[in-house]
Amino acid sequence: METNEPEAQAEPEPFRVPRFEIEGRTTALQEELRKTGIDGLFIVQRADLFYFTGTAQNGFLYLPAEGKPLLLIKQSVSRARAESALDTIVEIDSVKAVPGLIAEFCSRTPDRLGLELDVLPVNEFRFYRNLLKTKDCVDASPLILHVRRIKSSWEIAQLESTAEMARRTFGYMRTVIAPGLTEMEFAGMYEAYARTIGHAGKLRVRNYNTEGYPWHVLSGSSGGLVGVLDSPASGEGTSAAFPAGAGNRRLRSDEPIMVDLGSVMNGYHLDETRMFAIGSMPEKAYRASRSAMEIHDAVIERARPGTILAELFDQAVAMAVRLGFGDVFLGPPGHRVSFIGHGIGLELVEPPFIARGRNAPLEEGMVFALEPKLVYENEFAAGVESVFRVTAAGGRLISKVPVEIFIC
Amino acid sequence: METNEPEAQAEPEPFRVPRFEIEGRTTALQEELRKTGIDGLFIVQRADLFYFTGTAQNGFLYLPAEGKPLLLIKQSVSRARAESALDTIVEIDSVKAVPGLIAEFCSRTPDRLGLELDVLPVNEFRFYRNLLKTKDCVDASPLILHVRRIKSSWEIAQLESTAEMARRTFGYMRTVIAPGLTEMEFAGMYEAYARTIGHAGKLRVRNYNTEGYPWHVLSGSSGGLVGVLDSPASGEGTSAAFPAGAGNRRLRSDEPIMVDLGSVMNGYHLDETRMFAIGSMPEKAYRASRSAMEIHDAVIERARPGTILAELFDQAVAMAVRLGFGDVFLGPPGHRVSFIGHGIGLELVEPPFIARGRNAPLEEGMVFALEPKLVYENEFAAGVESVFRVTAAGGRLISKVPVEIFIC
Repeated sequence: METNEPEAQAEPEPFRVPRFEIEGRTTALQEELRKTGIDGLFIVQRADLFYFTGTAQNGFLYLPAEGKPLLLIKQSVSRARAESALDTIVEIDSVKAVPGLIAEFCSRTPDRLGLELDVLPVNEFRFYRNLLKTKDCVDASPLILHVRRIKSSWEIAQLESTAEMARRTFGYMRTVIAPGLTEMEFAGMYEAYARTIGHAGKLRVRNYNTEGYPWHVLSGSSGGLVGVLDSPASGEGTSAAFPAGAGNRRLRSDEPIMVDLGSVMNGYHLDETRMFAIGSMPEKAYRASRSAMEIHDAVIERARPGTILAELFDQAVAMAVRLGFGDVFLGPPGHRVSFIGHGIGLELVEPPFIARGRNAPLEEGMVFALEPKLVYENEFAAGVESVFRVTAAGGRLISKVPVEIFIC
Repeated sequence: METNEPEAQAEPEPFRVPRFEIEGRTTALQEELRKTGIDGLFIVQRADLFYFTGTAQNGFLYLPAEGKPLLLIKQSVSRARAESALDTIVEIDSVKAVPGLIAEFCSRTPDRLGLELDVLPVNEFRFYRNLLKTKDCVDASPLILHVRRIKSSWEIAQLESTAEMARRTFGYMRTVIAPGLTEMEFAGMYEAYARTIGHAGKLRVRNYNTEGYPWHVLSGSSGGLVGVLDSPASGEGTSAAFPAGAGNRRLRSDEPIMVDLGSVMNGYHLDETRMFAIGSMPEKAYRASRSAMEIHDAVIERARPGTILAELFDQAVAMAVRLGFGDVFLGPPGHRVSFIGHGIGLELVEPPFIARGRNAPLEEGMVFALEPKLVYENEFAAGVESVFRVTAAGGRLISKVPVEIFIC
């Protein structure tokens, strides 16, 4: 049959960030630049570049506080032009051409220049500062992340596409999970499946020392291991060289298995956790998992515009105490994390944080991964994680995976 | 049968970096510190930390130019103690405890402090500089990478273990490659297999804007796409958000398919490329692939201690010209890269580079990924990549994958 021939199968539509998105983001950032007296912004980092241009080719964006953005591309300019809705895209042989092109295309060269000082390594920063001959270089990453914190309807639609892929991936897990598979074997199986339906494989994390990966499978006692991650449980990992996430431990029947899946499609991430058990879940883990789900539902219920981030956090902690889980909530004693949720979008972890002491309010359009987790040290981890958005009417799930314990 | 029960299957022996390794590395680095007048080194980055301690838990290493290293661990100190052969491992609640502990454990506080300025982001650097109250902070990453450039016999053995896993993975690819699979589907299949035999999934790359991944599958015209990577061919990728590596294109019969596999086990990386074809390889691509293999063999043949890196590079270019491939060697016109090989070890790409203008000599114990590649723009890529080490008698392959074109 002809439809079985590879040539006859339709290639997916190419993904493109629309012009109105780029323009809206640019306008919002330029407003921030003017408010803070920054004349222009020099963007280097991949996620930021993609956000403000629609392309992740090798290059730089110069965004003046007023006027049109200038995209300078080392390679490949033809791909950048096909991908980006920006008007001015110039090919450069070397980064040394940048100052001359800024002078040529923009009405003025910046006296005060913004750079991404939270990610830019010192040596690279010094190189650009010298090249651009601007003495007053300031950190503009808070402004960038401030604009990125509100997701447009177009971005929500992207996240929903990722959510559908993740829902199907969790469904697949239920059909293949089996005793005897190592955590990493199981992770390899579901990741291979996820790739067939759009998973892009590579999670982006802003912090250079935080290594994101989609294989956070913590079975039985692996879930009770704290470690390198700023997370309630780190897992065993494959060796001392990478001591986090899935490891060599084999899945067993009748034990709690936590699967924390990072998903990414077209650059947009989801981060979701569900509890699995093969056969049955021990009563202690079952009760802990149910309580995490109660806390999860209550936080989403209360997540309205104006609610203070720290209050949501404090209420979750108070609820865990009330339910009798105060000593294991968010990590074992001495190893507790101080957040229950993090922003998510073009990076797996981005501001804002639902965390202790964060006094900013929730705003419509914010998107969070919410992860109330309970850790019994050296025993197991239990919990749940979903991505939700803040609407005028309150929190609404973007995640499409049923909020259930999966007994397979 | 009882041996089929998960409980009865043996868990792998835990991997540990031996004490003599850590001591040798420490001694070599301390010698460099003294030569350059640096009093102490503050190590933060994960790969460096693992190299000098044997653990990748969350913490910091302070290495004085004389005396014992001090490992400060935020989490988990019990895991760090089990993993690291260092004597002095202290638990800290906060990084703020660091200056006091350096003063307590070391004979003097540093006047001149070395930091990893090639990877440390500006904001983090400023925080540590302020915390440690050392005005004279210098970049010590060249010294660290200088020590790391020579691999010990123990490290060679680690790389050989990774090579055996990679050999089996390439063998597996030959059994499953089929027309109709997308590049990413195929990549997911072989990665899932590789995870069952020890692949740790996460490749480490030093540069914050270079995103390493194991799925560089470039079939047919995908191989002819230049783009974001500093590599002869970038591939299509899954979307504009991640425009490199395997994409949605379906593999076809009778076309050249380049598979560039990054492997990692116990922290040690391999980087290897082989050409595949299903059915037959077109003559033009076959000839190009054979020529890449000739250049590959010739470079390894010439790789003796004392040979200058730039000369090896220049000879490879001259050979490509002689063979009639001058216009496609290392990329299409206007997009040529200026290296044919890179160091490899705890990171996928590390110094030294077999590159234009590099005047340093090869030394015994250096390990390189050598990748002569030919790119016909918008047509295909052809080439080969193997990892070899420099011995007193010349270059010796660490890679165990046959240097062949795989017609499946």
